[in-house]
Amino acid sequence: MKTNVCVLGAGRMGSSIVRTLLNQSYPTSVWNRTVVKCKPLAALGAKVASSVEDGIRAADIVIINVLDYAASDALLKHESITSALVGKTIVQLTSGSPRLAREEAGWVEAHGAGYLDGAIMATPDFIGKPETTLLYSGSREVYERHKALLFALGGGTSYVGEVPGQASALDTALLTQMWGGLFGALQGMAVTEAEGVSLDTFRSHLSAFKPVVDGALFDVVERTKAGRFAGDDATLASLGAHHSAFQHLLEACEERGLNAAIPRAMAAIFQEALSVGSSDDDFASLSPVFRNRSRSQNSEPANA
Amino acid sequence: MKTNVCVLGAGRMGSSIVRTLLNQSYPTSVWNRTVVKCKPLAALGAKVASSVEDGIRAADIVIINVLDYAASDALLKHESITSALVGKTIVQLTSGSPRLAREEAGWVEAHGAGYLDGAIMATPDFIGKPETTLLYSGSREVYERHKALLFALGGGTSYVGEVPGQASALDTALLTQMWGGLFGALQGMAVTEAEGVSLDTFRSHLSAFKPVVDGALFDVVERTKAGRFAGDDATLASLGAHHSAFQHLLEACEERGLNAAIPRAMAAIFQEALSVGSSDDDFASLSPVFRNRSRSQNSEPANA
Repeated sequence: MKTNVCVLGAGRMGSSIVRTLLNQSYPTSVWNRTVVKCKPLAALGAKVASSVEDGIRAADIVIINVLDYAASDALLKHESITSALVGKTIVQLTSGSPRLAREEAGWVEAHGAGYLDGAIMATPDFIGKPETTLLYSGSREVYERHKALLFALGGGTSYVGEVPGQASALDTALLTQMWGGLFGALQGMAVTEAEGVSLDTFRSHLSAFKPVVDGALFDVVERTKAGRFAGDDATLASLGAHHSAFQHLLEACEERGLNAAIPRAMAAIFQEALSVGSSDDDFASLSPVFRNRSRSQNSEPANA
Repeated sequence: MKTNVCVLGAGRMGSSIVRTLLNQSYPTSVWNRTVVKCKPLAALGAKVASSVEDGIRAADIVIINVLDYAASDALLKHESITSALVGKTIVQLTSGSPRLAREEAGWVEAHGAGYLDGAIMATPDFIGKPETTLLYSGSREVYERHKALLFALGGGTSYVGEVPGQASALDTALLTQMWGGLFGALQGMAVTEAEGVSLDTFRSHLSAFKPVVDGALFDVVERTKAGRFAGDDATLASLGAHHSAFQHLLEACEERGLNAAIPRAMAAIFQEALSVGSSDDDFASLSPVFRNRSRSQNSEPANA
């Protein structure tokens, strides 16, 4: 007999979760603020819960995927609901910050339920595929107990740690690396076009240069992991050499009237590391600047 | 009979260029401010020029690789030198901005010499390898005439365009994309560690998530090329969805006291695009913000 599941939220992601669970023969009920979104799922065999409370009472495990934590709180934080939580498992897949995950875990566990906080590293179409990753943090016991169901949602599912905010933190960290590269591409394309170089040319050289970029990325991660900040034989370019080339970006932005908000922020970070004598160090020697607020928040971008 | 070459500058890069040319049997002379660096090259068969002027007079093509354009100017901008330039070809490999390349091209050509501005997309050890890219811009005729020699320095050599600053602009643009991803990794690692997640865990998930990041990168380039900014069926996540997830980064930085200089700059860029109603558009709809100084330089980071 498979676990009874209730899914709160039938947006694109919630609906994809319900369809995947039904495909795997989990008895699944679904609730959504506007009930019409539940209809296609009912046609596939989902039970439509008449209320959040009814959905929770009939289920062993409740998967929440709504707009944000405020919307989730609006569903859960009523006396009628809290009394229904005892002995249940809550899997919170609504996107939130590490702090929200920690607070939610405390609140759910105080009401006698188990809690897992999840981050979905995929778009709705990929739910249920072997390569899809969902990250979880919170109770390891809950994760182990519901592993079969969790892996049904994505074969690359991974448990990050006991601290409830850890899945959200890792999700945010990976997106942060991605945003860096994407904003960098947008900035680079502006520089390219300002000098009359076509974006086709940029595109083809971006591909050719990719192995160098990937090598530099994993190198900076390995060095930060190991605290190997000093320049050595394997240093591709010293911090001073990076900074020297970086001046051409600042100059191109200035000359061509391009948005320089991100380069100026980077310039301040370079400057902070160089001011403590890191010129001959590896690029990874910037790493400590990202951790120390008191030293870095008030520094002026000296090269802007 | 191969072209006579003079290389000005025998640092790590200049020395690697000299060695590569000697390996390919180009008659090569070398000059360096401190002559001792020329000795190992002389032992390999390089002629050591007694002065910059002598080096230039004896050569058909002069390759310059010194610290920066100021150092290059200090070598070239004397009357004795300018008279020696007539009929020569100058290949400027010193790293500089697009503007410096344009000015240098004008100056060199006004003195009767041909000019190519180059950017070396590799470390010294890779000079002469089949996969190594050097980008060139400036006179196409000069590039075509010296193609054999230029390809001897790197098999992936590429001509970017007639505008002398174009090689520098493309070089800067590619490095800008790289810096974005590297700074993003440093920021992401700070977020990861602040929640007690190990960098080993970050490293392994960074690898697993890489195909998604690479897909998003080339997607934003293709969409920017085509001006396809509206959201469509292939939009991975709308600008509004990105922005919503981005708030977790700002909150994590705030809560954990992490350096938020780059996230704040990004927040202002998000805000500018969202203020004109781009919430349902693709992430690529941020692209115009990078081009328009008057709209973007003075805006406040509304989400900081």
